[in-house]
Amino acid sequence: MEMSKRVAFVAVALSWFVSVPAVAQDGLWDEARRLFQPIPLAPPAIKGIESTPSRVELGKMLYFDPRLSESHTISCNSCHIVGLGGVDVLENSIGHRWQRGARNVPTVLNAVFNTAQFWDGRATDLEEQAGGRLVDHSAMGSTREHVVEQIKGVSGYLGRFREAFPGQDDPIRFENVQNLIALFEATLITPDAPFDRWLRGQENAMTREERDGLEVFIRKGCANCHNGINVGGGMYAPFGVVEQPGAELLPPTDKGRFEVTKTATDEYVFKVPTLRNVVLTPPYFHSGKAWDLRQAVAVMGTAQLGASLSAAEVDKIVAFLHSLSGRQPEITYPFLPPSGPETPRPRP
Amino acid sequence: MEMSKRVAFVAVALSWFVSVPAVAQDGLWDEARRLFQPIPLAPPAIKGIESTPSRVELGKMLYFDPRLSESHTISCNSCHIVGLGGVDVLENSIGHRWQRGARNVPTVLNAVFNTAQFWDGRATDLEEQAGGRLVDHSAMGSTREHVVEQIKGVSGYLGRFREAFPGQDDPIRFENVQNLIALFEATLITPDAPFDRWLRGQENAMTREERDGLEVFIRKGCANCHNGINVGGGMYAPFGVVEQPGAELLPPTDKGRFEVTKTATDEYVFKVPTLRNVVLTPPYFHSGKAWDLRQAVAVMGTAQLGASLSAAEVDKIVAFLHSLSGRQPEITYPFLPPSGPETPRPRP
Repeated sequence: MEMSKRVAFVAVALSWFVSVPAVAQDGLWDEARRLFQPIPLAPPAIKGIESTPSRVELGKMLYFDPRLSESHTISCNSCHIVGLGGVDVLENSIGHRWQRGARNVPTVLNAVFNTAQFWDGRATDLEEQAGGRLVDHSAMGSTREHVVEQIKGVSGYLGRFREAFPGQDDPIRFENVQNLIALFEATLITPDAPFDRWLRGQENAMTREERDGLEVFIRKGCANCHNGINVGGGMYAPFGVVEQPGAELLPPTDKGRFEVTKTATDEYVFKVPTLRNVVLTPPYFHSGKAWDLRQAVAVMGTAQLGASLSAAEVDKIVAFLHSLSGRQPEITYPFLPPSGPETPRPRP
Repeated sequence: MEMSKRVAFVAVALSWFVSVPAVAQDGLWDEARRLFQPIPLAPPAIKGIESTPSRVELGKMLYFDPRLSESHTISCNSCHIVGLGGVDVLENSIGHRWQRGARNVPTVLNAVFNTAQFWDGRATDLEEQAGGRLVDHSAMGSTREHVVEQIKGVSGYLGRFREAFPGQDDPIRFENVQNLIALFEATLITPDAPFDRWLRGQENAMTREERDGLEVFIRKGCANCHNGINVGGGMYAPFGVVEQPGAELLPPTDKGRFEVTKTATDEYVFKVPTLRNVVLTPPYFHSGKAWDLRQAVAVMGTAQLGASLSAAEVDKIVAFLHSLSGRQPEITYPFLPPSGPETPRPRP
């Protein structure tokens, strides 16, 4: 080895040694690094749809525009409020003509990291989820055709669609609307939670109590389902693996993923929800019946793990869950182009 | 006069001469300066309520928080959308349990410059307007007591109220809520419209057509009512001074200010609305039945002035109205503190 190469080698080796964080000595950190990944600092790419600044900005406009709904009063942000943990803090959302949604609204924050969307995973991605709500009679109540008509009826949108899709003759299409909303939603990530900073090696980012809580979370088996980048969102599980909770929390009429797959083993199976920002998103469970995070944790212990968690264990897990709140997205309210005589009339 | 004073005098006189804009030569500019005032660049003070950054920020949070409503789904911004000209572009708003508002929603933008609030002027200021909507059964559907209970039930608010009202033992009070919302709303002004820049002496800020429109606007008498800083918002007038429009535009059941004053001469009297940002705020009139600004202008000619405006005159006035769109407020979506087990449940 030449002298210069030797020096370089020693320097690299030394820098590696120096950069190994103190937490690496800790078995918990190694285990956590195998089970979880930090939220990336930059929004992830969406498969098959190129993200550009003009697309993300237009997607944001559509996300906030109530004129995509039949009544012109409900936008994506009505239920997935960007300033409120990406949810509406209701048991179930209020949609078109005050109809109630069937399940508690999942957060839009970090939803891009889930393997599928909705509690039953019936949408494979954000695009499909957004499109589904637009045309759901109890949500935004429109149709694919009418969404397009309404956007075409707001003259200020055409130029922006042309800019976002320069090659297309007729860019105001339902598929583009779905994709634009998804591109904006993919930017709604919350990096830099204490847990993320700790995972990245910043030892004092989590308190002692939060780390103790993480240890209980792993030892008791919570992390068997709640793992990965979203601490959940990556698999399905029956609600009541060990013991079914009462009908209040698990209404017998909602059979979850069974309604998608029609497979008997999918009865009362739901997507494992993300625990990212979970302290911001009560009430809990698909039924939205648990308002107290401590109660939700205790129920999970009994129903999913067959473990009656002590009050101290619940407290520790809740402390850990607090460390999952990341930097909330900073959103400038978009300026929406005005309606005009040519805009289809709202149909409340 | 001492020499130094003489020099100063000449300098001031010269600078005055040099700064007299070219438009000042124009009689239209002199007339316009007597009739109208530009929107100030900084938000105006509100009588009796000191504005501080922490108050404005907290007022913004309350403005966007749907948990002030009985159902936890309707915020001030649901009907006064900051990104949509301060309105909801509906004939009449949709409120608590999908009830319809009685009249078209007036814009919140520049509302601080109106002499009174609501179409019938029944609220003297922004504070009273905000409080009125919170407790209106068809708007946000709450009560003074319950609004306070709900805010107290969101634990993250207390510290912010203490910071905003440092001298108060129990700062979460309905009056403070009203005042905070009003302080935020007072920041929702739209300065620097072409008309404002022209009024300030920037000759080419308005196009020739816009200035011609202003001239028609003044000559035909529109400015008799639509004047001042808000080009309206400063007085009351009967809808149909000269000729009552049809029942579609002026429903006989809504007697306007008469319902406030019970004075016979106030039948079908309404506050003259601001024309600031009017191209952003269809549909028009208290009934919200006119979607086309050209139609609205033509109806005003017949009903208020007894003048059948030619198509060319309508076009010119509409061109002038375009010059009234100012710089829209740039609002960062506030981060709202989460609900918890102690938060009063939504009552949809």
